[in-house]
Amino acid sequence: MIPNFVNKKMFHLLDIIGTLFFAISGVLTGLNKKLDAFGVFVIAFVTALGGGTLRDILIGKTPVGWMIDTQYIYIVLFGVLISVLFRKKLDQLRVSLFLFDTIGLGIFTIIGIEKGISKELDPMICIALGTMTASFGGVIRDILCNEIPILFRKEIYATICIIGGGLYFFLKQLNLNQDLLYLLTSSFIITLRLLAVYYKWSLPQLYKE
Amino acid sequence: MIPNFVNKKMFHLLDIIGTLFFAISGVLTGLNKKLDAFGVFVIAFVTALGGGTLRDILIGKTPVGWMIDTQYIYIVLFGVLISVLFRKKLDQLRVSLFLFDTIGLGIFTIIGIEKGISKELDPMICIALGTMTASFGGVIRDILCNEIPILFRKEIYATICIIGGGLYFFLKQLNLNQDLLYLLTSSFIITLRLLAVYYKWSLPQLYKE
Amino acid sequence: MIPNFVNKKMFHLLDIIGTLFFAISGVLTGLNKKLDAFGVFVIAFVTALGGGTLRDILIGKTPVGWMIDTQYIYIVLFGVLISVLFRKKLDQLRVSLFLFDTIGLGIFTIIGIEKGISKELDPMICIALGTMTASFGGVIRDILCNEIPILFRKEIYATICIIGGGLYFFLKQLNLNQDLLYLLTSSFIITLRLLAVYYKWSLPQLYKE
Repeated sequence: MIPNFVNKKMFHLLDIIGTLFFAISGVLTGLNKKLDAFGVFVIAFVTALGGGTLRDILIGKTPVGWMIDTQYIYIVLFGVLISVLFRKKLDQLRVSLFLFDTIGLGIFTIIGIEKGISKELDPMICIALGTMTASFGGVIRDILCNEIPILFRKEIYATICIIGGGLYFFLKQLNLNQDLLYLLTSSFIITLRLLAVYYKWSLPQLYKE
Repeated sequence: MIPNFVNKKMFHLLDIIGTLFFAISGVLTGLNKKLDAFGVFVIAFVTALGGGTLRDILIGKTPVGWMIDTQYIYIVLFGVLISVLFRKKLDQLRVSLFLFDTIGLGIFTIIGIEKGISKELDPMICIALGTMTASFGGVIRDILCNEIPILFRKEIYATICIIGGGLYFFLKQLNLNQDLLYLLTSSFIITLRLLAVYYKWSLPQLYKE
Repeated sequence: MIPNFVNKKMFHLLDIIGTLFFAISGVLTGLNKKLDAFGVFVIAFVTALGGGTLRDILIGKTPVGWMIDTQYIYIVLFGVLISVLFRKKLDQLRVSLFLFDTIGLGIFTIIGIEKGISKELDPMICIALGTMTASFGGVIRDILCNEIPILFRKEIYATICIIGGGLYFFLKQLNLNQDLLYLLTSSFIITLRLLAVYYKWSLPQLYKE
């Protein structure tokens, strides 16, 4: 008996939660950079929706997602509102924030992969799209904030999406139930991310003197 | 009796004027950054046409505008030419430049909104497209020049486009004549921008110690 | 008798060589910036394929090229692998690297022009697409590495693509055999680039005190 945990409704709810927490993490960056209200909103927006927007542009799914389904803009606005209002509390919630952000990573990876499959693209490309959806919002955020993207320097992050994407296609070949497929892949990504942060795993720097 | 001031031809002329002055402002940035001739051209180009290009990509109107209607490239080239030739005079013309740049802001906002309407997008998305058309050329310019976009830090600018866009849809519901709609919206945006600069209005920084 | 040197197969081979050497040059940048393995891969990827990707997005050829023909990803991966393995030797191979990189410049310019022609765009736009294909991967690389793009500051590079593109359309009007057209255009671009580097040609800075 497989629990129907990751059914469509639940999946959509997790997508919203992921978007919200990605937006909150964007607000924190914007505040640190001392941007004005509009700047903070844009940074929250690209952190939450930039990866999916880039994906939609590259596969030609236009108008891009948030232009069709406007609820995502409201989620970002809500994220900006609550994180500005409670910004003094956010420091104490760092662990919860990190947990929800990690859930976003798992969900967004799967969403990106599914979009690639719906365009009948090669599994490798689908995995790239999943990775992009989950992690390139942060790249655009860092570019707008005039930093070398943290994704290219520290922590395993994109790599986890890639490995998780590989698992997705491996499990898919086993003809698993779709719910179970989603559940296993996202749990794997979330667990791996938690382990990676806990044990401070990082990719090797290839540079040597 | 409504004057037929903002008819199609006049609107197109203002679009050209806006493009030209956005390009000139781009040239000034490129010169300050001591770029070479090609760099100055690219910065002028993205300042003038980058916002509209991003808009076209996001809504899937491709090949993007300036690839179909090549006169915009000539306008940018002309802007580069005259501003390089008369660059010593440009300092004295700062007020006129600012005025024309502000006209561009009003016109570009309306153009962006109209493109969104033609794709039957939600009014909120149309306003976002107007804002993008009018102000994201400057964002791309700043990214290429390795600066945190000024749009996210100083002055009310994008916010004026957003408010102006709201006025547009409010007036549209009154079934106003299209010319009057254009005239009122762009005048409002231009006036608000002039007031904002004169009185040094700015958005609150959300960051607090 | 015209040698059938630049036939389709040869052209494709040169495309692959160009991609490979653009990727290698990207790896060197990534290593210098002390990025981790994922960062180095992304920089190699955008250096090699970023210009063509931007071109495909702007003309609306989506999903973009490397999503359809996945061999380009393998070429980039191969480029990363060999340049990380032999990174100590690469310094001694600087001249060969530069030569192959220059071949890439010639080939990529022609590829970009041809894509524009296939979309029936204006010759000026086709030349812009050729220039973009050949040189804007480096622009994206520099933005990701938080530098003002070198393309806008030093050396003639894009300008050579533009002049080469002009030659292409001039020769095309003479109804030349396509092979000869490719051969002459790419040789011209390659020669001009070699001369430009040897004699340290550069565009004038337009800035003057």
